[in-house]
Amino acid sequence: MNIRLYNAYILNGNFDISFGEIHISEGKIVYIGNSKSTSKKWDRNIDMHNAVVMHGFSNCHTHSPMTLLRSYCDDQPLKVWLEKYIFPIENKMTEEDCYYGTRLATMEYLSSGITAIADMYFFQEHVIQACIDSQIKVVGIGTAMDIDGKTDEKLEYLEQKYVKYNSYSPLCSYKLGFHAQYTASDNLIKGIAELSKKYKAEVCTHLSETASEVESCISEFGMTPAQYLINHGIFDYGGNAYHCVHLDKKDIELLNQKNVSIVTNPSSNLKLASGIADIDSFLKEGINVAIGTDGAASNNALDMFREIYLAAVLSKVVNNDASAVSAKKVLEMATLNGAKALRNSSGVLEVGSDADITAISLEQPNMQPINNIVNNIVCSASSKNIVLTMVKGKILYENGKYDIGISPEEVYQKCNNSIKRLKSQI
Amino acid sequence: MNIRLYNAYILNGNFDISFGEIHISEGKIVYIGNSKSTSKKWDRNIDMHNAVVMHGFSNCHTHSPMTLLRSYCDDQPLKVWLEKYIFPIENKMTEEDCYYGTRLATMEYLSSGITAIADMYFFQEHVIQACIDSQIKVVGIGTAMDIDGKTDEKLEYLEQKYVKYNSYSPLCSYKLGFHAQYTASDNLIKGIAELSKKYKAEVCTHLSETASEVESCISEFGMTPAQYLINHGIFDYGGNAYHCVHLDKKDIELLNQKNVSIVTNPSSNLKLASGIADIDSFLKEGINVAIGTDGAASNNALDMFREIYLAAVLSKVVNNDASAVSAKKVLEMATLNGAKALRNSSGVLEVGSDADITAISLEQPNMQPINNIVNNIVCSASSKNIVLTMVKGKILYENGKYDIGISPEEVYQKCNNSIKRLKSQI
Repeated sequence: MNIRLYNAYILNGNFDISFGEIHISEGKIVYIGNSKSTSKKWDRNIDMHNAVVMHGFSNCHTHSPMTLLRSYCDDQPLKVWLEKYIFPIENKMTEEDCYYGTRLATMEYLSSGITAIADMYFFQEHVIQACIDSQIKVVGIGTAMDIDGKTDEKLEYLEQKYVKYNSYSPLCSYKLGFHAQYTASDNLIKGIAELSKKYKAEVCTHLSETASEVESCISEFGMTPAQYLINHGIFDYGGNAYHCVHLDKKDIELLNQKNVSIVTNPSSNLKLASGIADIDSFLKEGINVAIGTDGAASNNALDMFREIYLAAVLSKVVNNDASAVSAKKVLEMATLNGAKALRNSSGVLEVGSDADITAISLEQPNMQPINNIVNNIVCSASSKNIVLTMVKGKILYENGKYDIGISPEEVYQKCNNSIKRLKSQI
Repeated sequence: MNIRLYNAYILNGNFDISFGEIHISEGKIVYIGNSKSTSKKWDRNIDMHNAVVMHGFSNCHTHSPMTLLRSYCDDQPLKVWLEKYIFPIENKMTEEDCYYGTRLATMEYLSSGITAIADMYFFQEHVIQACIDSQIKVVGIGTAMDIDGKTDEKLEYLEQKYVKYNSYSPLCSYKLGFHAQYTASDNLIKGIAELSKKYKAEVCTHLSETASEVESCISEFGMTPAQYLINHGIFDYGGNAYHCVHLDKKDIELLNQKNVSIVTNPSSNLKLASGIADIDSFLKEGINVAIGTDGAASNNALDMFREIYLAAVLSKVVNNDASAVSAKKVLEMATLNGAKALRNSSGVLEVGSDADITAISLEQPNMQPINNIVNNIVCSASSKNIVLTMVKGKILYENGKYDIGISPEEVYQKCNNSIKRLKSQI
């Protein structure tokens, strides 16, 4: 496929914007520059009508199948929410539920400009397959936890997936990971650290999401979860830490020394009343901060525009400083930093890179007048403005229509059938 | 015009949802109920494809012409933002700037389901006229301030507008108002209280938006701004208080006793680092709490979905309680409570009321599957889901197209010309 996108504002690697066009061939970007006449025969020659063409967003932490539980249970205290509502229904979920829940999630991702995700959920083979079938990039994240005591089994399964999905499809890769410090035994954590050493591989985990998990760890082990994990060598080859709402100064220094990326999940942290992460302090330390939507049960939308807006404005209120964390910095977090965390794209538009691209229309009232396009993207735009999303040069979403090998109607019907059945089973 | 909306989920006055249809004649709702066969000749007979049909949102605090300043200056400390950037450029704004800036704002309002606004800005005649020309309901709010010492002139102008715009058009009304305690002399506040008594009229004002304005008032007068204004009789006939981020317990009790509606502006308070209003405490006191977008310079989108989402989730994080302020309560705030604050619509769909209606599509991935429609509207929906908005039975927005007597392209061009000229003048 040879595709030309013209009459476009192009956001380049320096986060400067110039008007011109971009050419894509065999999934790669082959030209970015001024408008030029061309006699080449294009498979698609698309007038972008002055839309901003930019690298797609990386959603660095999500649980895709939880779309099924969107609005299933809101406005409950965290413990009740998890133990009375979420865990019982998750126990009834099937492979097919997770597959179609993920298919639905990929539609939200594409329509909000997301071209790559990192997903952590059970029946992971089916989650990864759903992403590959929708043709979106996916990093499977290990989900190990051994509150049931089956430590060796968990480690074996984790290593199998790590090996399999790092050579399975050009769209997918895999990182070692476990749910969280508080759901992992000392043996499991040691075992994962050994796997990390064996493969020189990063490790990903939820970290210090709530105040109570930090208090429990300090009470039991005399140190914070970050320090406990670092002492066990979990981050000796780097990794991604999710949420990080309750880090102390020493945690932040140590995570930076270990080259850990922090993935912030602002909307989920608000809804579950976990708190507000002070990403300004992470950025000032020099940490690579990326952004994730978390799952739809705790959000309730897999919409990167919600997250980038919140990342920008929550930093201001939590620091009591309207100048904290600029829009440009947030846009870097959602693209360049996200790509650094996931390691499956360049994160910026450049010749030779995969064509993982999204386009944001400016010709809607929320984007007018044009004072500062980057600020408009971060603080004014919504997924309504997305007019095109492609992954590896394949257009998967365009003007409200999906080209992902399945109809929206079929996905909606499967998901409604799933949740109806699940509700009847609990 | 006779309009029939069928195949719709209808959100009724009890915030229950039933499937059926709604009929509109001469701007009023004439039927709400089950699907029925009809031989009537309709001007429009619209299949809603299972969208939720509900009363439009009331945006109870905004400064419409500030669309021109969208993204003009972000990420600056509040004092620098106001004094170095906003005030100088506002000083150069013309009547025409304010007119077209408002026209642009009305497009955002309609496309995010807003059918009525309360606007506080200078060149108010032109703001009101722009709303009437776009056929949206508007309540003009008095803008008095006398830091220039011209108190009598301000009072005279305020009274003139109050009289004029309460009998000017079925689409508009007017409330007494002044900018804020800290920009009004003792004489101006006394004068407005006298006008309020003369007309038995409500008074509206910004109140306790920042910690520093509260500290200054306590330092100068020995009491909070709320108590200072109440002592002067400002709220003897009720009113609307905007922001209210920094109220104390006594303030909340007194405002409730005076039947003052509090209008919360969550996004603006985040971006300007003003803080998070504890709306849960207002609701528990029994106060009528409504919602506003504030202006686009401090937001940067006039999108009610952003505000209702934030009203829901910020309450949770500020109270450290994921069960604080339910989605249903927030939806009431944006419709029923807003209508109570503005007094220009019923706020709920009922036979005999003005047909101020918006419709939210469920057939998009962010609204699937269907577990709880009200939760989906508050926590998952975005303006992308709005498929139709009408005011007094006139369809003004439908499937991305506006019918407001001017083309989007003309509005965008006028606004870009305005801001370009304004920037060159400062």
